[in-house]
Amino acid sequence: MQVEGRHYRTIWPTADGLAVEVIDQTRLPHAFEILRLETMEAAARAIETMVVRGAPLIGATAAYGLALAMREDASDGALAAAYDRLFRTRPTAVNLRWALDDLRQRLRPLPQGQRADVSWRRAAEICDEDVEVCRRIGEAGLEVFREVHAAKSAAAPLRVLTHCNAGWLATVDWGTALAPIYMAHDAAMPIEVWVDETRPRNQGAALTAWELGRHGVPHKVIADNVGGHLMQHGLVDLCIVGTDRTTARGDVCNKIGTYLKALAAKANRVPFYVALPYTTIDWSVENGLDIPIEERDGREVTHLWGRDHDGRIREVQITPDGTPAANYAFDVTPAELVTALITDRGVCEASTTGLASLFPERRGRI
Amino acid sequence: MQVEGRHYRTIWPTADGLAVEVIDQTRLPHAFEILRLETMEAAARAIETMVVRGAPLIGATAAYGLALAMREDASDGALAAAYDRLFRTRPTAVNLRWALDDLRQRLRPLPQGQRADVSWRRAAEICDEDVEVCRRIGEAGLEVFREVHAAKSAAAPLRVLTHCNAGWLATVDWGTALAPIYMAHDAAMPIEVWVDETRPRNQGAALTAWELGRHGVPHKVIADNVGGHLMQHGLVDLCIVGTDRTTARGDVCNKIGTYLKALAAKANRVPFYVALPYTTIDWSVENGLDIPIEERDGREVTHLWGRDHDGRIREVQITPDGTPAANYAFDVTPAELVTALITDRGVCEASTTGLASLFPERRGRI
Repeated sequence: MQVEGRHYRTIWPTADGLAVEVIDQTRLPHAFEILRLETMEAAARAIETMVVRGAPLIGATAAYGLALAMREDASDGALAAAYDRLFRTRPTAVNLRWALDDLRQRLRPLPQGQRADVSWRRAAEICDEDVEVCRRIGEAGLEVFREVHAAKSAAAPLRVLTHCNAGWLATVDWGTALAPIYMAHDAAMPIEVWVDETRPRNQGAALTAWELGRHGVPHKVIADNVGGHLMQHGLVDLCIVGTDRTTARGDVCNKIGTYLKALAAKANRVPFYVALPYTTIDWSVENGLDIPIEERDGREVTHLWGRDHDGRIREVQITPDGTPAANYAFDVTPAELVTALITDRGVCEASTTGLASLFPERRGRI
Repeated sequence: MQVEGRHYRTIWPTADGLAVEVIDQTRLPHAFEILRLETMEAAARAIETMVVRGAPLIGATAAYGLALAMREDASDGALAAAYDRLFRTRPTAVNLRWALDDLRQRLRPLPQGQRADVSWRRAAEICDEDVEVCRRIGEAGLEVFREVHAAKSAAAPLRVLTHCNAGWLATVDWGTALAPIYMAHDAAMPIEVWVDETRPRNQGAALTAWELGRHGVPHKVIADNVGGHLMQHGLVDLCIVGTDRTTARGDVCNKIGTYLKALAAKANRVPFYVALPYTTIDWSVENGLDIPIEERDGREVTHLWGRDHDGRIREVQITPDGTPAANYAFDVTPAELVTALITDRGVCEASTTGLASLFPERRGRI
């Protein structure tokens, strides 16, 4: 993705090979700042504090985090400790576990002397794979967009609603839900995006609006409350979102509020798509309601930050003093509300059968 | 309602009889300030800028506004001009039209010399009636709450979700949706309230949380995205909201986002109640989707205000520079998603038949 004319990924190894750098997403959209991560602990903290977020990017950062740990101490004990530390950073996204499992499995049989190099190379591979996987999701999604747009006049814009940020910033490049939007725009399909602001952390208002603006895609930010009204009035042609964990039967755990939009889409016959890399599928879970849902600090609800008129970043309190708040970070959209899953292997029904058709090697295994 | 040990209504005539005073709701919850309105234009601006808001309070303020206009000029031309000016302040709430029609009808046959006094007295009556109407809504709602609570253990709290502010501050006293909550709490029923923050203007986070806190009712503020998750997990026993306009068949036009909560309630078999005074029923409209929906400045979405750590009220921008936003203020919940309407005449089904059973005098009339 281009930022001020230069191509960026969201995470990359430094030229000296001693660290990785990431875009500090807690500073966007008001500042574009790069953060250097030199230790496993720094990588873990970057995930916890949401300097990096988005299921695929969390996985990539965890992989580099484990690789950084192996440079300091490649013993079995250090491997186990680093795995645990990184695993505890965020409970819901499954890519984190996927990346850590992938590395641990490769490293365990190796002599300690090889573990640092192998894990560093594998982390880089995970990043490259993520880019390719997202590109394929974009191509599969673009076909879906073309079908939906074919039902409209060619000049009429395809109106897409998205929730949270499942874009370039949530992955290593391209994004999941936003990948087909970028490709459609690049292919000259007229497209307009309704961007849910996505309270309480405003990833839509801050990150998705920033990404779409950088790429020149027409969009409007809306309060999370608005999608139902838009769908009732025929102002949304399709919804597309990402997912932090998808179950074997196609239930989708994604940013809090996704479920409400899926209900509105169903009630108004608006197709509701979920874009995902294979790494977010948790084959060990059937019922989405069994997924642990992260509860975050209530302060994210009672306080908000932004830029004031003199350019300073400030935090303001919107509730009366001492008001308690509850802050659930994700919810579950049952498979029956999902029109289709758009994956790196193509499009399938959100069901056990649908997923098995794309991932036959998983049949009978968990 | 009590504020710092003193009883307040939201609007009252001044002791000198020359003006009305209102609580400036744009300053809550961070400051409790009283604003004096001496002219019709001041009343109109107070409605437009949401110094006063909430369908019943808008009606009461418009009535006093018309009365203030009659003091300056009680001619037919001035009456028509004041009606038009006040009517144009907000397009969705029907109480505004109801109050203005009520006054105009009474004033037209009168000699000009009587119009100022009659309209002032009638505005006061409208306020008194609103208090009594809300008290009756509270009593009817309390019975509903008792029925729902009877299905739980007596010690378990009744968990109620509400959206926006349909409390004391939206009316002259008591509130609509919050009236039964106050009465249940006063009657020692254990009750806990999930307060939707209600973006973009945060009436839940700012006003409902403030009201409930003043009254000592346990509550938690949540992002508007959270209600679906709570209902999926059995954490909501009932939803109750107000309405800005209810159609003859029971469709409910209320603050944007209400519809999404009603969909989630239906999907999870959580009862969804709407509390309303008879003045918010628009007998001339059947289909809620025919109600004009106010579109407000996009700046309410892209900018937020609150109190910073040094106590100053500040506005901060949450989106990238130049980001466009759409800001629809209300949506429509179809009658089939509403479990029952709770009115000042009792509880009825949200349907033409249900409303006709409580308002038989409206049968065959619009």
